[in-house]
Amino acid sequence: MGGVHAEVFAEHPRARLAAVCDLDRGAARELAGRFAVETVTDDLDSVLSDDRIGLVVVTTPNALHAEQAARALRAGRHVLVEKPLALTSDEIRGLLRLADERGLVLAHGSNFVHSPKFRRVRELVADADAFGRPHLARVVVRNGGPDSGWCLDPALAGGGVLLDLGCHAVEICRWLLGGAEVRAVTARSQRVRPRAGRVEDQATLLLEFADGALGQCDVSWACPGGEEITTEVLGTSGRAGADLWAGMGVHAFSERGFASVWEPNQGWVRPEWEWVRASGYTHQDHAVVEAVLDGTPLPHSAVEAWTSARVLEAAAESAATGRTVELAPSPNGHPVPDAVRGGDRVH
Amino acid sequence: MGGVHAEVFAEHPRARLAAVCDLDRGAARELAGRFAVETVTDDLDSVLSDDRIGLVVVTTPNALHAEQAARALRAGRHVLVEKPLALTSDEIRGLLRLADERGLVLAHGSNFVHSPKFRRVRELVADADAFGRPHLARVVVRNGGPDSGWCLDPALAGGGVLLDLGCHAVEICRWLLGGAEVRAVTARSQRVRPRAGRVEDQATLLLEFADGALGQCDVSWACPGGEEITTEVLGTSGRAGADLWAGMGVHAFSERGFASVWEPNQGWVRPEWEWVRASGYTHQDHAVVEAVLDGTPLPHSAVEAWTSARVLEAAAESAATGRTVELAPSPNGHPVPDAVRGGDRVH
Amino acid sequence: MGGVHAEVFAEHPRARLAAVCDLDRGAARELAGRFAVETVTDDLDSVLSDDRIGLVVVTTPNALHAEQAARALRAGRHVLVEKPLALTSDEIRGLLRLADERGLVLAHGSNFVHSPKFRRVRELVADADAFGRPHLARVVVRNGGPDSGWCLDPALAGGGVLLDLGCHAVEICRWLLGGAEVRAVTARSQRVRPRAGRVEDQATLLLEFADGALGQCDVSWACPGGEEITTEVLGTSGRAGADLWAGMGVHAFSERGFASVWEPNQGWVRPEWEWVRASGYTHQDHAVVEAVLDGTPLPHSAVEAWTSARVLEAAAESAATGRTVELAPSPNGHPVPDAVRGGDRVH
Amino acid sequence: MGGVHAEVFAEHPRARLAAVCDLDRGAARELAGRFAVETVTDDLDSVLSDDRIGLVVVTTPNALHAEQAARALRAGRHVLVEKPLALTSDEIRGLLRLADERGLVLAHGSNFVHSPKFRRVRELVADADAFGRPHLARVVVRNGGPDSGWCLDPALAGGGVLLDLGCHAVEICRWLLGGAEVRAVTARSQRVRPRAGRVEDQATLLLEFADGALGQCDVSWACPGGEEITTEVLGTSGRAGADLWAGMGVHAFSERGFASVWEPNQGWVRPEWEWVRASGYTHQDHAVVEAVLDGTPLPHSAVEAWTSARVLEAAAESAATGRTVELAPSPNGHPVPDAVRGGDRVH
Repeated sequence: MGGVHAEVFAEHPRARLAAVCDLDRGAARELAGRFAVETVTDDLDSVLSDDRIGLVVVTTPNALHAEQAARALRAGRHVLVEKPLALTSDEIRGLLRLADERGLVLAHGSNFVHSPKFRRVRELVADADAFGRPHLARVVVRNGGPDSGWCLDPALAGGGVLLDLGCHAVEICRWLLGGAEVRAVTARSQRVRPRAGRVEDQATLLLEFADGALGQCDVSWACPGGEEITTEVLGTSGRAGADLWAGMGVHAFSERGFASVWEPNQGWVRPEWEWVRASGYTHQDHAVVEAVLDGTPLPHSAVEAWTSARVLEAAAESAATGRTVELAPSPNGHPVPDAVRGGDRVH
Repeated sequence: MGGVHAEVFAEHPRARLAAVCDLDRGAARELAGRFAVETVTDDLDSVLSDDRIGLVVVTTPNALHAEQAARALRAGRHVLVEKPLALTSDEIRGLLRLADERGLVLAHGSNFVHSPKFRRVRELVADADAFGRPHLARVVVRNGGPDSGWCLDPALAGGGVLLDLGCHAVEICRWLLGGAEVRAVTARSQRVRPRAGRVEDQATLLLEFADGALGQCDVSWACPGGEEITTEVLGTSGRAGADLWAGMGVHAFSERGFASVWEPNQGWVRPEWEWVRASGYTHQDHAVVEAVLDGTPLPHSAVEAWTSARVLEAAAESAATGRTVELAPSPNGHPVPDAVRGGDRVH
Repeated sequence: MGGVHAEVFAEHPRARLAAVCDLDRGAARELAGRFAVETVTDDLDSVLSDDRIGLVVVTTPNALHAEQAARALRAGRHVLVEKPLALTSDEIRGLLRLADERGLVLAHGSNFVHSPKFRRVRELVADADAFGRPHLARVVVRNGGPDSGWCLDPALAGGGVLLDLGCHAVEICRWLLGGAEVRAVTARSQRVRPRAGRVEDQATLLLEFADGALGQCDVSWACPGGEEITTEVLGTSGRAGADLWAGMGVHAFSERGFASVWEPNQGWVRPEWEWVRASGYTHQDHAVVEAVLDGTPLPHSAVEAWTSARVLEAAAESAATGRTVELAPSPNGHPVPDAVRGGDRVH
Repeated sequence: MGGVHAEVFAEHPRARLAAVCDLDRGAARELAGRFAVETVTDDLDSVLSDDRIGLVVVTTPNALHAEQAARALRAGRHVLVEKPLALTSDEIRGLLRLADERGLVLAHGSNFVHSPKFRRVRELVADADAFGRPHLARVVVRNGGPDSGWCLDPALAGGGVLLDLGCHAVEICRWLLGGAEVRAVTARSQRVRPRAGRVEDQATLLLEFADGALGQCDVSWACPGGEEITTEVLGTSGRAGADLWAGMGVHAFSERGFASVWEPNQGWVRPEWEWVRASGYTHQDHAVVEAVLDGTPLPHSAVEAWTSARVLEAAAESAATGRTVELAPSPNGHPVPDAVRGGDRVH
């Protein structure tokens, strides 16, 4: 997970990776090399006393989170802790107080509530005219089990799947329902696979909210067929849901129509999200900036437009005549015409 | 389209919007206001002579592209032209030559080949071990017709849907098949709706590639039910396809398995793309940077982690006892506990 | 529901509809007319004493089921009762005993466990080599509320959605898990819409099975967007699920492969069901039988084959020459050739 | 294919299988055994002279169809011929004339136009108020190649995939568009896999209809990932399509709404088909008839209803009390209660 956060921070124009700290110095060097980080250490204190460092990202085993985050806060550093922020609510309360006293940012990894797709679902649910009152939410977070060995060691992981994936599911569920208070919880857990050892590897939660809504959270480390992360919300006049991985985007229903959905917006709709990026404009225009500033070749140059234009001219002729039109081969068997380098002027 | 590109450039750390030029000064002012651009003009020459400006983005009606792009290039500016780059391959050849002579970047809008989802399809197709030789590609670009009035005026648009959406479809199709040369083209066009006036509003193209592959392109302005942009490729040992809007998934098949697909990777798979962003890490960590640098409140604070931790503790108790566990209401009916501000220390 | 059963029995070669009994004589006459039933009555006793009648189908309001079924059994008639068979398990026990003593068939409407699609899911789940041990099942039965007014009158309906749709969901869930015994039940209900009056219109059940499996049943009368009936089962090495209406597909996963799935059968698969019927053979060949026995015209005659053959001959010529091939118009502007009636002999 | 038709005819109440004729007498005996057919022969003449036989079903290699069908017609038998009805349109014209002269039924296998799912699509397309004028249809019939060896022998098969699957695709396409006349055909074929030998194993057809509509047919024997049979139609105010195997049912769009679609019927809809059967009523009620007439045990007996009723009673208690309710084990550890056989009376 350190590598994932490093990748994101490395791309942020105002952030800079200052140090990598890992007891496994080989792993630290590999990560530092990937992102051109100079400082590599296995000593957390040296990081915490480094005044270049404003933000510490904690991605160690769960059981170490609270203590390491507290040390960072006490050293006056902002902190981002991977999920779960700590093992207990009491530990978290303590960290909140530390951060509050010092005016520091205490952030935790709850990445899925930031997922563009799920944010789109939340936006649809919040369209009260279209959706009415949400009264049922279901969140599923299942996979085939953790990759890291320590996750199955309760001393390091602090628990089983209920803690490890449950913290995702519960936060997504509460967030989808707009943050109403949970009044009661019923849960059951299972040990499906021997591999799970002493901890549960599947659990289901039923949350009763103060406003009468119900929340269902299903988490599993015993799910064959790849990771499943799905959400679903029912409202009095609408529905919305999304499957994060397995294809399907967002689907939603409202008889009245969603304000933010591109046509058609009534009945069952399949809303897009981040459409400027999804359409490719972000990647395209950034490539143009790099071409202009750095001379990086365009990944899809204007010669392609020339080639397609020839195809379209042939198509127009074919449509007009009803005949198949053959294209003369490009000079030198390559779509880039020599003429382009030698030839005629325009205008 | 000017607004779309402005939005992308405004977010790029190394780009800055210097001027907005539009004959409609009201529209220009609106756009400039949205992105805090100081210079607003309806005089292209004043833009082209402004030495702060390195890149000109042309999003005028199609028939003006070639002349305006040529002027910009002659003024020594890099140029990005919305699709179609120009009305004819001869015009494009002229522009290529101008750019080539002056060592300038000439880029064109072909955004869908930069779409993260379609790039993922291309990546799967290019996995020769899994996919074999691609021999059939199909690209569909259909919508309900252009929003801008000038698109239906052949004098400004330069043609109908064959040019307007065909330039997308043909470039996607050629790109998916790895850039083989088109040897022959057969096309048919239709006028489905009276609204189309004198131009075709639906067309289908059959491309014959030099390597024996076939390409199919379907474009339409007469498609009810929302925009459809889909791709599909058949290979000798694999298949891959994606629907850009309606469904959002990539689906692919390979008996041998794709190297880049997360488990499971054999048979029918539904590969993710941009998974770090899709997972929410990008949005989450950028929000943390803004909280640290600018004091912007976190959109999802650590208090949420405390609240979820209480729910999970109740869940663990419920799973252990078989009983429903009620949560004490948060003080003041709000999930933020007073205790956090007054309370106990940690560690 | 009387009409649905009448439609099915009317098509069975060995069944015959003998009488329609309804307090609403207009409705009775309408139904009788539709299926050519001679006896129409509002007197159940006259039906029960009619010795032509072997099987009585009870589709009255729920609260009448037990008493009417008991009368029919006492009269020596086999009985099929719409769901729920009766309002309580004690009532059902009594009916079971009556049927048992008299050697009569007592059947109840639980149609979804007979659904071809869900039977296919059950078959996949039962493929232990592929699926392993099933440990979680989820069944959703939701709609926008009952059509019949009496369903919202607890005196006639005997309850709310928990009884009305819960009886479906619980039976499907138990059946999907192979009939293990339910050891404990946790449920919550909601009143989402005022229309529901005094009864719950949404409920969720958590079933704990004796073998450690969990079952989840969600039922709702407050679901916008059309009826949802879905099933999902997780096994130690496989998954399977289906959406009865919205999508029509079965999807399943097994790394080892399902014995009964047509190629490809490993990884994620989308198995067919009733493929002979789905392929159209049943409808086609039955139409042939009717043409032979009754002279009914074929819905798709051999003239269509002649027309398609002409198209294929043109296609072969086009593929060979690379040219578009025009077809001579059929005589009289109609695909049926006069030549067929006048023309040449074959063989 | 003989087995498929045998299965269908065996289930028809008014049809009876009288004889199986196959040069491979082992295969003939196997088939006859499966359907309890007495007469087994390799002599077609003996079948044709058997006056018990009204209908002959021809499922031999393609090249034999015309001659065998003609012999059957001359012998005064009705004939059903597997697709393609014959190798050429002239052969078919001859057969049509023979049948016409003798007043016999000449039917051909074009099963997919009888498919319940595609019939539903056709029905939606024919709803002119909702759909407008259909102007584009696309039909895909692809698989991994024929199972029978003779299909790759042009002498027996009469051609490649253009004939073998093209006859399906062309008939579906024409039928979906309501039978308008084909005015021109453009086609291309490919040899993708060496296995195909001398014939094409992939082809694409573009049909131009007299009313201006276009039809696209794609057929392939070189498609990895399982058989694909899909249809799609665009109309001036609606869309409809279906995937026969890979899940997805029918999807359709109309802003005005389809008359025959159950709620909701506007915008994007996912219409059901054969809903009485899909719901399980047909299988359920037929099982009841067999229980009544033959004493066959019910596949899902009323004891299941008793068991579910106990679960629902526990659920109601749990919903009312907020507590988990344990069920007393059924006597003898089996859901069938002894009480049922001994116990209390009802009413």
